[in-house]
Amino acid sequence: MSGITYKDAGVDIAAGARAVALMKRAVEETHGPAVLGGIGSFGGLFDVSNLKGMASPTLVASTDGVGTKTRIASALGRYDTVGQDIVNHCINDILVQGARPLFFMDYVAASKLDPEMVAAVVTGAALACKAAGVALLGGETAEMPGVYAPGEFDLVGTIVGVVDRASIIDGAQIEPGDVVIGLASAGLHTNGFSLARRVFEGADLTATPDGLGRPLGEALLAPHRSYLPEVGALLDAGIPVRGLAHITGGGLIDNPPRILPPAVAMTLDRDAWTVPPLFRLIQERGGVSDMEMAHAFNQGLGMLIVLPDAAVEPAMALLTAPEAGFAEARVVGRVTPRGEGPAVVL
Amino acid sequence: MSGITYKDAGVDIAAGARAVALMKRAVEETHGPAVLGGIGSFGGLFDVSNLKGMASPTLVASTDGVGTKTRIASALGRYDTVGQDIVNHCINDILVQGARPLFFMDYVAASKLDPEMVAAVVTGAALACKAAGVALLGGETAEMPGVYAPGEFDLVGTIVGVVDRASIIDGAQIEPGDVVIGLASAGLHTNGFSLARRVFEGADLTATPDGLGRPLGEALLAPHRSYLPEVGALLDAGIPVRGLAHITGGGLIDNPPRILPPAVAMTLDRDAWTVPPLFRLIQERGGVSDMEMAHAFNQGLGMLIVLPDAAVEPAMALLTAPEAGFAEARVVGRVTPRGEGPAVVL
Repeated sequence: MSGITYKDAGVDIAAGARAVALMKRAVEETHGPAVLGGIGSFGGLFDVSNLKGMASPTLVASTDGVGTKTRIASALGRYDTVGQDIVNHCINDILVQGARPLFFMDYVAASKLDPEMVAAVVTGAALACKAAGVALLGGETAEMPGVYAPGEFDLVGTIVGVVDRASIIDGAQIEPGDVVIGLASAGLHTNGFSLARRVFEGADLTATPDGLGRPLGEALLAPHRSYLPEVGALLDAGIPVRGLAHITGGGLIDNPPRILPPAVAMTLDRDAWTVPPLFRLIQERGGVSDMEMAHAFNQGLGMLIVLPDAAVEPAMALLTAPEAGFAEARVVGRVTPRGEGPAVVL
Repeated sequence: MSGITYKDAGVDIAAGARAVALMKRAVEETHGPAVLGGIGSFGGLFDVSNLKGMASPTLVASTDGVGTKTRIASALGRYDTVGQDIVNHCINDILVQGARPLFFMDYVAASKLDPEMVAAVVTGAALACKAAGVALLGGETAEMPGVYAPGEFDLVGTIVGVVDRASIIDGAQIEPGDVVIGLASAGLHTNGFSLARRVFEGADLTATPDGLGRPLGEALLAPHRSYLPEVGALLDAGIPVRGLAHITGGGLIDNPPRILPPAVAMTLDRDAWTVPPLFRLIQERGGVSDMEMAHAFNQGLGMLIVLPDAAVEPAMALLTAPEAGFAEARVVGRVTPRGEGPAVVL
């Protein structure tokens, strides 16, 4: 009898096993003593006995994807950077609440599983996890024939971190007179790709447009920056950070309001930082309005830090210490009373 | 100037906001006092101060999808059951290590975001979370034009639970003479759908095949069962459960070996349980071999429980208590010395 087998139906279990073999070592290198057991258990095990030292340990969790940045990765056949993207994106998403990351889980799915591609994605994720001291605790790869377009894939990450309840940062103390420090992004990070791809439809990703200084595809794929080193240094030094806004989907317009009390607005000074060439190129080629740009992109600012005026000098001293190798930091705005206007003025 | 806007490029932020509005209430109903803050924060906050009472609290986490079961849901336009599927699948995946679930996160992505569809998926997930006492702590919806095939979607879930380190169930104590109890599945659960869809290609999902007793589509969509009530009752009663195997991808062949020590095998008695009609229909229509069936499907057994012979009687008394409403339980096999043969014999 030669009936239908599972492989005929588009699912190659051996390919999944091969992907695991290829990425196993990079994943295991992220495992400190808190990780129990190995790859292949049903769930990942992470000992949190050390949280018993906190007054009120609070887990902070976030799930996210990298959006259609995967399509640039597919087009260029370069899969490691999106792995870094998703980890760093997730780190920032919980960092803004004051949490330090504990572990990360990934999910990679495509219509057909290419073991080398999956291994490249996960190895990139492992690299970013290792740099941040995060355990890559587990993950899943899925072949979904007919669900994904041929050659395309999705990448989803989930991070879990911890903060002592009294140290949660939520923006509630933000008040007029507070100052906004912006940390430079590395590029688009993981947002606005559907718009960017539309603007560059048909463009040669290997060509270097005037003023960009590197090939377009490379500029688009530049990995999302983790701000754990910068924000971690501020928190470790006891700088009174009142609010942190990770500039993700919704750009400079929609993210700051997520932490601003209703009575205040954030005024960003357009002259205080230089919008990087890639964003200017998108705006010119697409004829995109200023407001639409600020709504879709980070415009060069990946993280906004709100603190009282008196804390700005010590914060900037820390952030600009020449040996630290931190992302460029500059004062980019101020908190004002809101009145009838929008929450973000720029 | 009428340049490109983000919506033109295939991403409708307003649709995302509408989906959140539709599902907000169902999600909030899963939030007990441990959940801090509301929907819309960057990350979800979950107070775990009560874990300080454990000797060595250990988090157990798992990420998974529902596979191409989403295609049946799309074909029928019925989206709530897959939401239940992913939650229950994830609950079982950490339950097998002895963990009780704390919180769940979802991810729903499609080429075009339909707010009603997303809300139905997430409301289904919220229902399953509520039934299990799990907080639906957060999630993400993503429009991915060009990545997903038109009308199709993916659904990913991540669960985090906890177990005291000394109570982790890992199968290490399993020995020859131990007995295997099987708990009935509700259907295919979330595995083997690529094969099932191939077998039923072109079939009318609304028709009722002979012997199935309900329409084919309804039988295929039957939600994944959570075994938290059954296994929780055994653990609460102090029954010495030595190993638990959730029968997921890889079926009855690949899952038991994940918990079996190398020197033992599991012998399942084919006559000890009845393979449900849906599996028999797949096998007949597809001409699928017995081994391939057992490799792709749960064949009617969603969870296998391994315990010492002396514990079988009290365990079965608990599991078959008429008022409990538990999944059907029966002794289906035994642990034997392995020798040169396969890890699972059936």
